[in-house]
Amino acid sequence: MSGVLYGVGLGPGDPDLMSVRADRLVRGARHVAFFRKAGRAGQARGIVEGMLREDAVEFPMEYPVTTEIPLTDPRYNAWLSGFYADCCAHIRALIEAGEDVVVLCEGDPFFYGSFMHIYGRLHGVVPVEVVPAITGMSAAWTATGLPVTWGDDRLTVLMGTLPEDALVMAMSSADAVVVMKLGRNLEKVASALRKAGKHDRAWLVEYASMSGQRVRRLSEADGVEAPYFSIIVVHGQGRRP
Amino acid sequence: MSGVLYGVGLGPGDPDLMSVRADRLVRGARHVAFFRKAGRAGQARGIVEGMLREDAVEFPMEYPVTTEIPLTDPRYNAWLSGFYADCCAHIRALIEAGEDVVVLCEGDPFFYGSFMHIYGRLHGVVPVEVVPAITGMSAAWTATGLPVTWGDDRLTVLMGTLPEDALVMAMSSADAVVVMKLGRNLEKVASALRKAGKHDRAWLVEYASMSGQRVRRLSEADGVEAPYFSIIVVHGQGRRP
Ligand SMILES: C[S@@+](CC[C@H](N)C(=O)[O-])C[C@H]1O[C@@H](n2cnc3c(N)ncnc32)[C@H](O)[C@@H]1O
Ligand SMILES: C[S@@+](CC[C@H](N)C(=O)[O-])C[C@H]1O[C@@H](n2cnc3c(N)ncnc32)[C@H](O)[C@@H]1O
Repeated sequence: MSGVLYGVGLGPGDPDLMSVRADRLVRGARHVAFFRKAGRAGQARGIVEGMLREDAVEFPMEYPVTTEIPLTDPRYNAWLSGFYADCCAHIRALIEAGEDVVVLCEGDPFFYGSFMHIYGRLHGVVPVEVVPAITGMSAAWTATGLPVTWGDDRLTVLMGTLPEDALVMAMSSADAVVVMKLGRNLEKVASALRKAGKHDRAWLVEYASMSGQRVRRLSEADGVEAPYFSIIVVHGQGRRP
Repeated sequence: MSGVLYGVGLGPGDPDLMSVRADRLVRGARHVAFFRKAGRAGQARGIVEGMLREDAVEFPMEYPVTTEIPLTDPRYNAWLSGFYADCCAHIRALIEAGEDVVVLCEGDPFFYGSFMHIYGRLHGVVPVEVVPAITGMSAAWTATGLPVTWGDDRLTVLMGTLPEDALVMAMSSADAVVVMKLGRNLEKVASALRKAGKHDRAWLVEYASMSGQRVRRLSEADGVEAPYFSIIVVHGQGRRP
């Protein structure tokens, strides 16, 4: 009698924005796993603070401290693979012993989520169920108080880690644009938006639906760096259907 | 003492995927408004079946029967504007009388949602709160059992109502693609996907998370028409960050 692996999307941060299903799974879970950086509480874990069963067993999956080996070092990928393999071995053992395991995921698990590193390794091996969720970008455009798309608008979602010319090209051929993973890429992203003629219409949303939410026009931001949880939104203007 | 206008996203269809906040607002609402086509029950209204208060007052906003005046007739837009103005006058009167009004929205209200026709007219006039929700596309890619994006993937969302050359261009410069509003546009969209070299990787998801959900590769669909609630998903392949 195998257990089930649940990849549970928690939404953008506000626990009130979790789905009814996610709320039920989190509150009922005996085994709860989540990623976090070494020394941090973990964003996903933070969302469910106060919701877990008293006897819940937590399995924090701590990313190896990444500053010791630079991202460009070939050993980095090997190290990360080993880390994911260890996490999956632990989860698999629980599930094969008949326990359900809930993996807490920020936002929607299948949308740029780290859950895929577990899913890719355990899908087809143990029973898996994925619960979709409200994305960070939905919370971000809601916070701006303007519809992000209507009519025939084309929406493109980009990562701030892309090279600037790739950003410019993709931004130019879209009506509405979302950029995630800003951090130290903010200046490059702002420059790309300028070249694509969309800087004037861009909004910067930090910590959407979380405590500390902040919404401004990108032109009003100082522009050097943005927190990890920040998103740029350029609204579409309602291309005629 | 004014009431509040709530634009409440209900998610993709499964009531279990409503947010905790949406669930609470819907169950507590005295005034509930929703769009529907004349003679239909209304998709948004269907999602909350069995959840409304006994004394809830329903305000179905019935689209004027569109077959009588073709979309291309200039009178069509005038007619529709009049319709939205009438709906908003009714809602505004309730709110100014101190009542809260919950407008039921499929998916996320600010993501290609018809709520914007109300929001655009009443925002700044009465207090408005918008509750984001799980989109239909999140339910669709979850149903395919594959992450839609990872790494530096570029995701582009398109409407099947766009001209074929615009579809091809936008599809070609994206890694992951979502196409909505398929209906009679299915053949055109399939042809565009072929020209963009993405037809092989495309999935067709009908009624994501609703009863009647159906998931197949687009190449296995007969290809002439798709229901209103259907979405095409082409997954990204994890562009290297
Ligand atoms: C690895 S991606 C995870 C995306 C997540 N699975 C989702 O559905 O939104 C991390 C990026 O998501 C964005 N993000 C997610 N939630 C956010 C929030 N509540 N506020 C601002 N940004 C957020 C940030 O741009 C961050 O760099
Ligand atoms: C006017 S848009 C509304 C989108 C909605 N606001 C959202 O957030 O998903 C209507 C289109 O959404 C798509 N759609 C929405 N929910 C869906 C579902 N559960 N299954 C399949 N398609 C859906 C269909 O392509 C449909 O033509």
